[in-house]
Amino acid sequence: MNDIFLRACLGQKTTPVPVWFMRQAGRYLPEYQEVRGQADFLTMCKTPELAAKVTLQPVDLLGVDAAILFSDILIPLEAMGAGLSFKEGKGPVIDPPLRSLDHLKRLHPVSPWKDVPFVLETIKILVKELSDKVPLIGFAGAPFTLATYLIEGGTTKSFVNIKKMFFENPALFRSVMDLITEVTISYLSAQIEAGVQAIQLFDTWAGVLTRKDFRDGALIYARRVFNALREKGVPMIYFVYDGGHLLDMVRNSGADVIGLDWRTDIGTALKRIGSDVVIQGNLDPCLLFLPEERLRDRISEIIEQGRSAKAHIFNLGHGVLPEIPPEKVKMAIDLIHELSS
Amino acid sequence: MNDIFLRACLGQKTTPVPVWFMRQAGRYLPEYQEVRGQADFLTMCKTPELAAKVTLQPVDLLGVDAAILFSDILIPLEAMGAGLSFKEGKGPVIDPPLRSLDHLKRLHPVSPWKDVPFVLETIKILVKELSDKVPLIGFAGAPFTLATYLIEGGTTKSFVNIKKMFFENPALFRSVMDLITEVTISYLSAQIEAGVQAIQLFDTWAGVLTRKDFRDGALIYARRVFNALREKGVPMIYFVYDGGHLLDMVRNSGADVIGLDWRTDIGTALKRIGSDVVIQGNLDPCLLFLPEERLRDRISEIIEQGRSAKAHIFNLGHGVLPEIPPEKVKMAIDLIHELSS
Repeated sequence: MNDIFLRACLGQKTTPVPVWFMRQAGRYLPEYQEVRGQADFLTMCKTPELAAKVTLQPVDLLGVDAAILFSDILIPLEAMGAGLSFKEGKGPVIDPPLRSLDHLKRLHPVSPWKDVPFVLETIKILVKELSDKVPLIGFAGAPFTLATYLIEGGTTKSFVNIKKMFFENPALFRSVMDLITEVTISYLSAQIEAGVQAIQLFDTWAGVLTRKDFRDGALIYARRVFNALREKGVPMIYFVYDGGHLLDMVRNSGADVIGLDWRTDIGTALKRIGSDVVIQGNLDPCLLFLPEERLRDRISEIIEQGRSAKAHIFNLGHGVLPEIPPEKVKMAIDLIHELSS
Repeated sequence: MNDIFLRACLGQKTTPVPVWFMRQAGRYLPEYQEVRGQADFLTMCKTPELAAKVTLQPVDLLGVDAAILFSDILIPLEAMGAGLSFKEGKGPVIDPPLRSLDHLKRLHPVSPWKDVPFVLETIKILVKELSDKVPLIGFAGAPFTLATYLIEGGTTKSFVNIKKMFFENPALFRSVMDLITEVTISYLSAQIEAGVQAIQLFDTWAGVLTRKDFRDGALIYARRVFNALREKGVPMIYFVYDGGHLLDMVRNSGADVIGLDWRTDIGTALKRIGSDVVIQGNLDPCLLFLPEERLRDRISEIIEQGRSAKAHIFNLGHGVLPEIPPEKVKMAIDLIHELSS
């Protein structure tokens, strides 16, 4: 097996640098679209054969150094009893949104093998298929991010409902976070038991918090997840999108790898938190539109900055966008391997 | 006239600290809603009596230390020939979005006294009404932010179209930016001639850029605006929303005052860029939901941190949200005055 991803997670410098891309299994790939043509998004997530198939596509087509489970971060919310749907062009909807203790009482913990067996079956298929190829990454949404969807009822620009609860009714907020944290721990534990070799916690929305509020409203719960999973012995990545102002706290979260979005360059990040860390990131996904020569320069810069870290895993600063031509994604992966060899 | 806002802009420490809030004239105020009930949003912007009326409301009702012209940052785009409309609950729409040189050729520079006389007439009314009260702030969207609306056709999460143009077709991007920059300069010059006593440049979207791309794609145009207006002799504020990673460059933009969103606290910002700057900010608007005692603590912290700056203008880190009770906004303004006296 190509184990450069796992070795980098453990802090070893590798040649070449390992690369995988967030949303590498996604709409930009015609092969993905073909599968998606047969089933809606949630059905794909819940059908192990389909989920496994699209998980494998970027491994075979693009040559990435890790696969990441195809699923959605909101699957555990649905398993807790929240009403989840995806509306075309509108993103996820949680209906009704959680605004009261009464509503919270209607939600419940999750037994992954009973409530989301399809996720674990997908992992089992993948572990077999990938055994001589690359490691499989499992994932979950971080508690604050899941709570955002649950309380806002979907995506939001102002985060007014979750912050209102956090500031006006901190006891209810904490009860919601406690339940979600417990679910996240059992969900990721089951993924690890089923065979994923690393996990990533996606905190897509915690970057909208001040440092103080991140510490009290998001970090303590993420840290509880990492502490609980530490004994499982798989590397853990914490990705706080738009979290440049929080990096020192992310560094002390208990995760093994710090995921960086594209805004803060790796050099600046290392200056701020010290270079004895494993960094994952951080090409702006839109830079994949560049012509080859200029893309090469931008990738070189990131690889160069990554050399100062304890180890570096190349990734985008956010997911691959549907608008990116797949040949540009392949070109970037080849360039990353070439330029770090 | 209460001139503490203008004195702080010039770098003088004041007692109390001046305060105004972004979107202080807005939907959270029943008095605003009453006016809005008589006219749609664009009609309000274009009717000097109505625009002046809502501009004055927070001065009279809340006791802020500066008024800010009621208008919309997209008014100059419409004056350039772009099709602007506001769809209820969807925000602004520019239709068609600009994607080609042919389309750019159909846009044109703006003669403010001819093309947007209503803005300048609103200012003239306000200067008279405010003469013994507080200063009037004029504003414009920064070139990158205006270009985002023009090229995306509205709000966006991925910024894929503007970045695609910037990366794939930099010559076209530069031509768009040159025209918008020219328009912004003439638009703000006219506002100053009409009587505004300070201006703020809102860069709502430039924070989605890496440091390098901000420098090449946004900062140089904002700087051109500040350089052109410097001789007009009014203080200039540059607010880059979500620009924590860009602060050192914002500091060197030529603006007199750095506007901070709530993510990066003032203490951290000053540590990074030096304390010889005038800072405006930066309470998270959602903190206005806090009960009085805890709101007092959070406001105190910001005032305390602001004391290390050359001067401090209190503001929110973003606009007042429609969901905030107006009495909480009033309470915050009173607390800010009390705690900094």
